[in-house]
Amino acid sequence: MTATLKVARFPESSPPKACKVALLGFGTVGSSVARLLSARDHELPFQLTHVYNRDVARKRVDWVAEDVQWTEDFDDLLNSDAGVLVELVGGLQPAYEWVKKALLAGKAVVTANKQLIAHHGTELLALAREKDLHLGFGACVAGGVPVIAALQDGLAGDRLYKVRGILNGTCNYILTRIEQSGASFADALLEAQKAGFAEADPTDDLEGYDARAKLVILSRVGLNAEVRPEEVACRSIAGVAQIDFEYAHQLGCTIRQISRAELHDDRLYASVEPALVPQTEPLARVAGSQNLLVSTGEFGGETVFAGFGAGGNPTAVAVVSDLLHIARHKPRENDAAPSARYKVSSDFETPHYVRFVIQDKPGIIAAIAGVLSRNGINIDSVLQKPGCSKSELPFVMTLESCSSAKVSQAVTEIGRFDFLKSTPFVMPILR
Amino acid sequence: MTATLKVARFPESSPPKACKVALLGFGTVGSSVARLLSARDHELPFQLTHVYNRDVARKRVDWVAEDVQWTEDFDDLLNSDAGVLVELVGGLQPAYEWVKKALLAGKAVVTANKQLIAHHGTELLALAREKDLHLGFGACVAGGVPVIAALQDGLAGDRLYKVRGILNGTCNYILTRIEQSGASFADALLEAQKAGFAEADPTDDLEGYDARAKLVILSRVGLNAEVRPEEVACRSIAGVAQIDFEYAHQLGCTIRQISRAELHDDRLYASVEPALVPQTEPLARVAGSQNLLVSTGEFGGETVFAGFGAGGNPTAVAVVSDLLHIARHKPRENDAAPSARYKVSSDFETPHYVRFVIQDKPGIIAAIAGVLSRNGINIDSVLQKPGCSKSELPFVMTLESCSSAKVSQAVTEIGRFDFLKSTPFVMPILR
Repeated sequence: MTATLKVARFPESSPPKACKVALLGFGTVGSSVARLLSARDHELPFQLTHVYNRDVARKRVDWVAEDVQWTEDFDDLLNSDAGVLVELVGGLQPAYEWVKKALLAGKAVVTANKQLIAHHGTELLALAREKDLHLGFGACVAGGVPVIAALQDGLAGDRLYKVRGILNGTCNYILTRIEQSGASFADALLEAQKAGFAEADPTDDLEGYDARAKLVILSRVGLNAEVRPEEVACRSIAGVAQIDFEYAHQLGCTIRQISRAELHDDRLYASVEPALVPQTEPLARVAGSQNLLVSTGEFGGETVFAGFGAGGNPTAVAVVSDLLHIARHKPRENDAAPSARYKVSSDFETPHYVRFVIQDKPGIIAAIAGVLSRNGINIDSVLQKPGCSKSELPFVMTLESCSSAKVSQAVTEIGRFDFLKSTPFVMPILR
Repeated sequence: MTATLKVARFPESSPPKACKVALLGFGTVGSSVARLLSARDHELPFQLTHVYNRDVARKRVDWVAEDVQWTEDFDDLLNSDAGVLVELVGGLQPAYEWVKKALLAGKAVVTANKQLIAHHGTELLALAREKDLHLGFGACVAGGVPVIAALQDGLAGDRLYKVRGILNGTCNYILTRIEQSGASFADALLEAQKAGFAEADPTDDLEGYDARAKLVILSRVGLNAEVRPEEVACRSIAGVAQIDFEYAHQLGCTIRQISRAELHDDRLYASVEPALVPQTEPLARVAGSQNLLVSTGEFGGETVFAGFGAGGNPTAVAVVSDLLHIARHKPRENDAAPSARYKVSSDFETPHYVRFVIQDKPGIIAAIAGVLSRNGINIDSVLQKPGCSKSELPFVMTLESCSSAKVSQAVTEIGRFDFLKSTPFVMPILR
C-alpha cells in the first residue's frame, strides 16, 4: 500500500492568501520551495510574488504562477509588497546585506543559510526583534528534521547541557562507504561527488566547517551559549582509513564525524571531528546522508531526532514550516532568553584511539608507553592485526579517559621517534 | 566528564514573573513540574500560586514556596488570579468539566491528560480558540519527546501521511523483557509492575487503549485527520509468547506494540497491535520503556523522534515547555487548519505472521493451505522449530501481503479444525 498523495485535505475553502513571499535564489532548494508552495497552494496561505536569481532567464519555469515576477535585481524584492523574503543564495555576502536590508524595510526573513546565521545570527536576530519581525532559520540545521523548533520550543522546559550530532551528510556518506565497501578515502569521496552528495570542492564538508556552523547555531538555540565558529576546533575526516574501521569494529564501534557541544562548569566544550562511536549508540546507526541529533537535558534525559538532513525537498519543508510559523504567530515578545558567553574549549576528557604506522623493530611499545606514562596517560589496550608488512605496520592503542590536550602533547612527542612512518592518527572514543 | 547542572545561566537579571500558574494534581508528574519550576525559578517567568489535590494535607512539601496555596477545592483555583491551569488529575471526569470551566473563566490550560484530549480535544480546542486562549497538550504523547510541537510546527510545511510509533512504555518494557530474558508474559508483567513500569491494573496499557489515545491525538495533529478512539482497532499484546520472538528473530524481526495511522485515498488506516518489526527499522531498536515515533511526509520523507516517553521528569519538561510557549506566544490566530473526517479502517494490506499450535497428524499443512488458498492468500514460508512435543506443536506460517480482513476470515475458518490446540495468533509484519 502506498499512500496516495493527491488527497485534497481542504477541498471546500482555501484560506485567504494572507502572506506574500519573495524567493531570493532559485537553485535546488529554491525550486523545491516553489514546487512545495505550488503543490500545497490550495491549503497554504502563501502567494509567491518574486523569484530573484542571477542570470534569471535560464531559471524561468512554466509551472510557477504567471503573475510571479522573475528578476535579477534585489531591489525589486526590497521595494515590493512581499511581507517575507526567503533567502537561499548562501554565503556571507551579499546575503548578510540583503537580509539586513529586508529586515530594515520591515520584511520578515526565512533563511537556510547556516554560515550567515552562525556568523551574524545574534546581530540579525536582535535587529529582527527590534523591528518586531520574524527571522526563521529552521532550515539551517539538519534540513527537514525540525531540531531548531524542537530545542527552542518543544524542549524549552528542560535545561539542556549537551548536544551531539551527525550534521554533515557528505561526511557520513563517505565514512559509510569506506565502512561498507572497503573503498579508500579518495574513492569514497569520488563516489560521493558522482552521486551528488559532495561538491566539487568538498573542503567545507570534510574539514568540518559546514557542521561547525550548524553546531554554533545549535549551541545558541539549545544551550543558550554564544560561540563564534572560529572558536570551535575542527579536525578533518580525511585521515580516516579503511583499517581504522577494522580496529573500530574490534572495539565494538564505528567511525563518524561527530559535532558536539557540552556545558561543564563555566566552559563550553565543543568540537567537530571524526570519532569512534559505540555500535549501541543512535549516532552509530546513521547511514548514508542522513542526519541525527541527540540532545541531553537535566530533566528529560536524552532525546533523539533523525531524518533527511539535506536535499531540496526536506530543506524546503523546513523553509515552509518557518513560513507557516510566521503566518500563525506574532514574533516572540518575551523570548529574549539571553545567551551567555562561555570560555570555549575542545579539551574533552575522554578515552582515545591512536593509530600508529611504524617500521617494526624491538622496543617500540616501550618507547611509546614511556612517553604516555610521563604524560600521565594510561594505556587501555594495544591492537594489532596480523599479516601486515613489518616495514609499514599499523597498530592501535586505546587510552583510558584523559584530556585531549594531554594526548596531543604526548602524540607530538611520540611523533619525533624515527620508527614512525606517518603522523599518529588520533580520535576520541565517545561514551 | 559529567556536566555540572548547577550553572546559573542568567545570573544577573531574572525575568519578571509574568505568568501565574496553578497546579491541578500533585502526583508523580505534578510534583515533578513543581520541582522543575522551583529548580529553574531564576530563569523562568512562572510563579506557582496553587496546588490542588484530594486530601491535600498528606501531599504538602516544604520545598515549595511558602506563599503557594494548598487546597482541596477546585473553586479556589478557578477564582484565583492564576492565568494558567495545569491539569494533571487524569481521567475524563471531573477533568473535562474543570478544563472547560477554566477556559470559560479565561484561563489558559496545559494538560498531560491524553484520554481527555483524545475524546474531547476537538471541542476543547475550539473553545480555547473562541476564548483566545492556549490549550497545551504536548505532554499527552511521548512524554518528554516533543512530537506534538514537531508535527504541528516543525514539520508543518510537509504533508504528512503516515505516523508509526512505539507509544506505550509498559508494553515495550514487557516485550523487551520477554525477548531478552526468555521470561513468560505473566512473569514479565509482574516484573514491570515491581519496577514501577506497569500499574496494578495494566488493562489500558496491554490492550492498547493508552497508545490508542495518543494515536488519535497524533492523527489529528500530524495528519489533520479527526478520528474517535473507539474507531481505532486495538489488539492485546497478551497473546505474545517467548516462542514468537524465536520465530520473529528467524525472520530478521522483533515484536513490538505498534501504533500506526496512514492516510490512503479517502481512508484513515489505523490500529494498535503487536507486530513484527524488521531489525533494521528504528522501531525495532527501542528498548525498555522508551518511546519512538516515525512520521512520513510527502516532501521530507521519514523523520524519527525518540526518548523518554513517560516518567515524572520527562513529562514535566513537556508541561513546562507548553507553559513557555504560552508565555512567549499569543494564541494562534490563523491556525484553524480544519481537520477532516475519514472512514477509519484497520484493514491494512500487509504480510502476516500466524502461529498455530496443533496436535500433530498427517495432512495439517494441506488443510490449512487449502483454506488460505480458497481465501486467495499466498503462503510465503512455513517455519517449525525442531524438538517440540507432537501433542502441542507450535509452528508458524508467514503470508504474502494481503488484507488483514482476509486473514482474519481465513483464520476463523481454520480455527474450526479439531487439530488446533489454541486459537491461531496473528500479527502483521511491518514493511
